[in-house]
Amino acid sequence: MARRGAAPPDHPAKGRKALGSHRLRSFPLARAYRLIEPGPVVLLATSRRGIPNVMAMSWHMMVEFTPPQIACIVSNRNHSFEALRRTKECVIGIPPAEFLETVVAIGNCSGADTDKFESLGIARKPARHVAAPLLPDCFANLECRVIDTRMVNAYCMFILEVVQAWIDPERRDARMVHHQGWGKFAVDGRTIRLPSGKA
Amino acid sequence: MARRGAAPPDHPAKGRKALGSHRLRSFPLARAYRLIEPGPVVLLATSRRGIPNVMAMSWHMMVEFTPPQIACIVSNRNHSFEALRRTKECVIGIPPAEFLETVVAIGNCSGADTDKFESLGIARKPARHVAAPLLPDCFANLECRVIDTRMVNAYCMFILEVVQAWIDPERRDARMVHHQGWGKFAVDGRTIRLPSGKA
Repeated sequence: MARRGAAPPDHPAKGRKALGSHRLRSFPLARAYRLIEPGPVVLLATSRRGIPNVMAMSWHMMVEFTPPQIACIVSNRNHSFEALRRTKECVIGIPPAEFLETVVAIGNCSGADTDKFESLGIARKPARHVAAPLLPDCFANLECRVIDTRMVNAYCMFILEVVQAWIDPERRDARMVHHQGWGKFAVDGRTIRLPSGKA
Repeated sequence: MARRGAAPPDHPAKGRKALGSHRLRSFPLARAYRLIEPGPVVLLATSRRGIPNVMAMSWHMMVEFTPPQIACIVSNRNHSFEALRRTKECVIGIPPAEFLETVVAIGNCSGADTDKFESLGIARKPARHVAAPLLPDCFANLECRVIDTRMVNAYCMFILEVVQAWIDPERRDARMVHHQGWGKFAVDGRTIRLPSGKA
């Protein structure tokens, strides 16, 4: 088992300029859906036996508003699969467009033979409730627990519950990125507001 | 049961200018994930007892590439829930940004007391494999069958398999829209391409 708090208080990126303030402010759980519902590319961080890992993921969706529940597909060909299945904990980070090159680099190597944090110079911080690390270059981080594994065998599908959400208060203008296949991404453009009676 | 082909061959929009060519070209199933993975707002059309209905939806994700499988959450408070559960068929349409006002209007009324096609002037066409109608104002349409209802009671989650995909060949420049909560939407902006070894 990973020992909580065993990592240094803040593990800065090596040879990489920090994105944003790296400060994390608690974010209301009832609003966590606003980070997942738009369908961004996210990072999924795990920690098993004290070894942190991170993968890129686009197959996820909201399942419930409160408590916020998220479904995601983590292929059993991914090194993170066993970590998620065994530890039942993870952190989902929402990367801004400026972090996209690193996100793709994360997706193009495997934690099976690479310490991605070290080799890609990714910063991390200890989370409050889970052993998986927070990713302070992401403008939002969701600490999650696996609450249902019934669909893991059939679809590699995990149901997560968000137990703590964080945002970087200085990056309210961060733009999400959406994967359109084979390394093609759309960055959020103009915003449209329309009267809606529904969340 | 809805009678296949009972609808007229093309049911044009009333008092509304058609978006795009309304022509539909078959699209490779293996590429269907490129339409769902980026997390767009979509329309979900059903037809039960010959009565078509349509709802707006953002809680969906890819589950498998081939055959393409999609998970989605349809609340049992939505009129479409029973139609989907009973008929086990639907069409997912991907609306372009220009259709967003209608998408929100679709989300703000219920098929329980409204014929949305009539009152909102939404065009429809018969699908090839399912009773639910195609939505030709959308730049892509996916004909789907429900293949797994095991998670319906726990999470209102349906697993769909895409059996036929269509695109409008004249709308390759269509932009998806992503819901960020309470009527706030981000339209796809600039595109970034990065070398990736993965779909």
